[in-house]
Amino acid sequence: MKTFEIQGFGFDALKLVDRPQPQPRAGEVLIKLRALSLNFRDLLILKGQYNPKMKLPRVPVSDGEGEVVAIGDGVSRFAVGDRVVGIFTQTWLDGEPTREKARVSLGSDIDGLAAEFVALNAEGLLPVPAHLSDEEAATLPCAAVTAWNALVHQAMLKAGETVLLLGTGGVSLFALQFASLLGAKSIVTSSSDEKLARAKHLGAAEGINYRETPEWDKRVLELTEGRGVDHIVEVGGAGTLTKSLRAIRIGGSISYIGVLSGAGDVNPMPIIMKSVRVCGVFVGSRAMFEEMNRAIALHRLKPVVDRVFEFAELPSALRYMESGAHFGKIVVRV
Amino acid sequence: MKTFEIQGFGFDALKLVDRPQPQPRAGEVLIKLRALSLNFRDLLILKGQYNPKMKLPRVPVSDGEGEVVAIGDGVSRFAVGDRVVGIFTQTWLDGEPTREKARVSLGSDIDGLAAEFVALNAEGLLPVPAHLSDEEAATLPCAAVTAWNALVHQAMLKAGETVLLLGTGGVSLFALQFASLLGAKSIVTSSSDEKLARAKHLGAAEGINYRETPEWDKRVLELTEGRGVDHIVEVGGAGTLTKSLRAIRIGGSISYIGVLSGAGDVNPMPIIMKSVRVCGVFVGSRAMFEEMNRAIALHRLKPVVDRVFEFAELPSALRYMESGAHFGKIVVRV
Amino acid sequence: MKTFEIQGFGFDALKLVDRPQPQPRAGEVLIKLRALSLNFRDLLILKGQYNPKMKLPRVPVSDGEGEVVAIGDGVSRFAVGDRVVGIFTQTWLDGEPTREKARVSLGSDIDGLAAEFVALNAEGLLPVPAHLSDEEAATLPCAAVTAWNALVHQAMLKAGETVLLLGTGGVSLFALQFASLLGAKSIVTSSSDEKLARAKHLGAAEGINYRETPEWDKRVLELTEGRGVDHIVEVGGAGTLTKSLRAIRIGGSISYIGVLSGAGDVNPMPIIMKSVRVCGVFVGSRAMFEEMNRAIALHRLKPVVDRVFEFAELPSALRYMESGAHFGKIVVRV
Amino acid sequence: MKTFEIQGFGFDALKLVDRPQPQPRAGEVLIKLRALSLNFRDLLILKGQYNPKMKLPRVPVSDGEGEVVAIGDGVSRFAVGDRVVGIFTQTWLDGEPTREKARVSLGSDIDGLAAEFVALNAEGLLPVPAHLSDEEAATLPCAAVTAWNALVHQAMLKAGETVLLLGTGGVSLFALQFASLLGAKSIVTSSSDEKLARAKHLGAAEGINYRETPEWDKRVLELTEGRGVDHIVEVGGAGTLTKSLRAIRIGGSISYIGVLSGAGDVNPMPIIMKSVRVCGVFVGSRAMFEEMNRAIALHRLKPVVDRVFEFAELPSALRYMESGAHFGKIVVRV
Repeated sequence: MKTFEIQGFGFDALKLVDRPQPQPRAGEVLIKLRALSLNFRDLLILKGQYNPKMKLPRVPVSDGEGEVVAIGDGVSRFAVGDRVVGIFTQTWLDGEPTREKARVSLGSDIDGLAAEFVALNAEGLLPVPAHLSDEEAATLPCAAVTAWNALVHQAMLKAGETVLLLGTGGVSLFALQFASLLGAKSIVTSSSDEKLARAKHLGAAEGINYRETPEWDKRVLELTEGRGVDHIVEVGGAGTLTKSLRAIRIGGSISYIGVLSGAGDVNPMPIIMKSVRVCGVFVGSRAMFEEMNRAIALHRLKPVVDRVFEFAELPSALRYMESGAHFGKIVVRV
Repeated sequence: MKTFEIQGFGFDALKLVDRPQPQPRAGEVLIKLRALSLNFRDLLILKGQYNPKMKLPRVPVSDGEGEVVAIGDGVSRFAVGDRVVGIFTQTWLDGEPTREKARVSLGSDIDGLAAEFVALNAEGLLPVPAHLSDEEAATLPCAAVTAWNALVHQAMLKAGETVLLLGTGGVSLFALQFASLLGAKSIVTSSSDEKLARAKHLGAAEGINYRETPEWDKRVLELTEGRGVDHIVEVGGAGTLTKSLRAIRIGGSISYIGVLSGAGDVNPMPIIMKSVRVCGVFVGSRAMFEEMNRAIALHRLKPVVDRVFEFAELPSALRYMESGAHFGKIVVRV
Repeated sequence: MKTFEIQGFGFDALKLVDRPQPQPRAGEVLIKLRALSLNFRDLLILKGQYNPKMKLPRVPVSDGEGEVVAIGDGVSRFAVGDRVVGIFTQTWLDGEPTREKARVSLGSDIDGLAAEFVALNAEGLLPVPAHLSDEEAATLPCAAVTAWNALVHQAMLKAGETVLLLGTGGVSLFALQFASLLGAKSIVTSSSDEKLARAKHLGAAEGINYRETPEWDKRVLELTEGRGVDHIVEVGGAGTLTKSLRAIRIGGSISYIGVLSGAGDVNPMPIIMKSVRVCGVFVGSRAMFEEMNRAIALHRLKPVVDRVFEFAELPSALRYMESGAHFGKIVVRV
Repeated sequence: MKTFEIQGFGFDALKLVDRPQPQPRAGEVLIKLRALSLNFRDLLILKGQYNPKMKLPRVPVSDGEGEVVAIGDGVSRFAVGDRVVGIFTQTWLDGEPTREKARVSLGSDIDGLAAEFVALNAEGLLPVPAHLSDEEAATLPCAAVTAWNALVHQAMLKAGETVLLLGTGGVSLFALQFASLLGAKSIVTSSSDEKLARAKHLGAAEGINYRETPEWDKRVLELTEGRGVDHIVEVGGAGTLTKSLRAIRIGGSISYIGVLSGAGDVNPMPIIMKSVRVCGVFVGSRAMFEEMNRAIALHRLKPVVDRVFEFAELPSALRYMESGAHFGKIVVRV
């Protein structure tokens, strides 16, 4: 079968190769992949910026959807023909994260899904919400679960509250859609008025162009009568956290997720003075994924797919992600 | 009556002056102060490092205990002769902190308690646990409530868990005593073996001398079989947070309190990768103070008083705090 | 001024009398009432079935809205001309309920609002969401806050979950509207197909006519693939709780509110076997009311007003409530 | 090997028989049992009062400890020679209870541990805290985990709070020991002054002899200055719940566990009027068991073993439990 391999760090060492088709062992199912989706993390992994000590070669890409084509001994969760998605952290099924559960993430700690077939433990899979296409379902494992964990479990967002979303990447757009489901009000930042217009179409109450308004934290305070927002989905990282700490209200919470704006240092004093909670969010558990899927199914929510590439175009898809031109998820059809 | 006034920033501008004795208005009680306790914040305030825009003159010191000597109209919470302590944030009585509740802290936003008499709203006071001396009771409002809020409300510390305490200042020693009450295990750091020995006497399971073991985070990992501690009471601030983020377990929580190690910047990446919760703790509500007092009374817990100064010696007491030689609370008798 | 008085238990002893107009004392505001709304509790109080030891005479009705017409000393929360609603439990402002906070409910422990004027402590009032009429605003204090507390604080309802609502009284219809805001799915019971049709128009996914389907618990299990609902807003009381315990899922929660179906006893065994949480809900705090109003304002949510009576018709309005013919809130214009 | 079988309901149908020794399949370990402990549930099961539709024959007893003597394919959690205890609900490993997780409890849904050998899935076992004897370790799975779940997860008991414990059975004595660890105050009821004296020796602050003081709820109110206790571990069931609802404070919580006092009905009205939370507790998850073991190990806590029977005496041990003469856990050595 065809599979991509990261044979070294950098685009040049991302190779499409042949490997023998895997067979499902006891407890495993064999999946014929149909669609993948990309996350910024996949790009960092390829460049060696995420886990420089990662064992090579490694099959890239954490997010994928496919059809069950064979079943190992003792598997009752799935049958041949089922459409399934992989859990980002294969062993974090339920409860709080621990060292043991956090170890096994797809596309980094173990081989990912950029292949024609993969064999995974049946516990590490979930059925696909029926109303979603293969391409749409492939967008869920990392970005959507991260947004759900951030808003529902960390922020415990209440109807009527206001949440600030930085940019219009995958996590932020899912957070925008979920915030609407949950009855909250969203403020979105972007460098593009066109993207802000699309965000409003998706339910954002306010948009701030941070090119035109570099002090977007002040604008957030104006929009909240000086109070600050209740929650922030912080995908920017060190480059935006200082401003986020100005834009948050006393007693508010920040879901800290991101690396988009690069590494750097931050003065943590406002965390104390404003009694802020900063919650690191590293995707989420299978139980969170399941409850999110129930909400997605109930509301027939559709993920925002920006563009679909063919399997052999995976490198181009990653380059396109690097350009930052996308609005929503980048998908690769297998 | 005699009162101290911060007339300008710096020790030279801390003056003992005469002011007319206040009278209790409707809703207020008049308190004859008996004892004060000092916090590092009082020192920062005096030096202009805490709130450079603070209105002057300002009566310093947030923590004090005294006797009710007169009652304003409509007061039923207290009677003449009651021993009372002031609430640090006079208007944060219950529930979550908000902008409105957080505004009024003693010794900074409004005049503090370094005076012979003070008139305060009856809602901003609590009765003193009966087994405590005046000096002991005066230690509670800032440091003890902060430690209680950190362990009980932010960390939700469970029996059997391990908590790391940085140094042996007021907050850390209360946290040590409370952690024992709650059935948790404590690891304490200090620059002094003698202080570590005293901390063990108070219930610490392990001590780390950070002069001898500058990489104390590695020692914490060794003491926890590589896992890291469940919670950290972070009083150090930017200067220690980087190491604390190495010493915390995946999914652990850090109560972020401190400024002792000075300002600075921190790389926040581990917050994401380890799913850590960093909770800013700015003292706590009256309701937290009440539930803490109930625990203190049940266990006849005694605060650790390092040394008692006379009222006129307040400047010396602050100098002594600055030296860092103390173990526990510094008290001033009025 | 005109006021109603319960001079004895029963409709005959509900009298419209003259009392001197109250004056606001320090901390109070004087309100000219505009609209009242009725709750089933008002009926039970009148009949002596709620609090047989209640001091008489007592002004009835807990829920009311009006205009501030005068201000007592020291009041800064409100100005003359503000539209305000009363808090059901005047002293439960924030945090958890306690004996002290729970003591003072309008229309039972102290005089209620069925009068032309009332003087209340400014802390016991909230501003009216601007988009609501006087009649609509008057419906909020008891029924809406109860529904909000039940779904948001007790059930912590998540998007995608299913909630069962018994009947179409005030609490159940607010719960239906809030469940939609929160992204949940609602199943409603009623004895009337017409009321079920109206409930579906308001957002209910399913309706069960309990006249036609007396074993509505079995129907609920069918509608949830045998699993049971995640939450139940139990307004029926002892008469329905047994069936509710059959209709709830393992690990689910029941907000226990109601007295509509009369007194009686219940076998509590299923609470253990299904790990169910039964949470008594007695209205809620001012902080809950405020956060609810924010959600109501954001979504421009409109309470369901069934019918508006004139002030002198209060007895007829109570009779109409007794008939059970209403759908939503019964309002009295002052 | 020797094993007990419930061949029909009642003591006469409890038979000691021979069965072939089981072999561990993939994922399983083979355990040579060393000690069992009894719960009231085991007695109800034998009599057909717990699950009248239970498939027969069934090996009784949920709680047991033993040594790993063989390992199935793919097992890495344990090695031969490890001492292990079984999880009561074999499939509830983490997170909230669900229908799927709750299905498989030992000694009822599947065969229990009253045998010389048993093969169980490695996921359904935990290592034994090192300081415990085999007999002591065997007491943990049902009673201790129930008490831990009740106090730590349902009640979220805080230091300084007061908890009421009904009687001196296994759950209540573990709750007494855990309440002390957690810094809370305990009030214990019993029909025997001697048992009350022993409970005080274990840490109870107050004892109430309910033979001498049948209105023990009034005595509880006296002991709490009229306020009521913060939490109750309700092992009595319908026969005591009415009084428990009088003894609980406003806003308090009741962990509802018990069946000891037999079936019956209860008037649930006080649940509303006092805003009480009644939480059904059906043992707990493996994650709860693990965190409890950590606390037990830290404090070298010793379970209270009343008496140890030999394996063939299991029927006598159950008779002894039926007599109610015990104080703490009844153990059977295999």
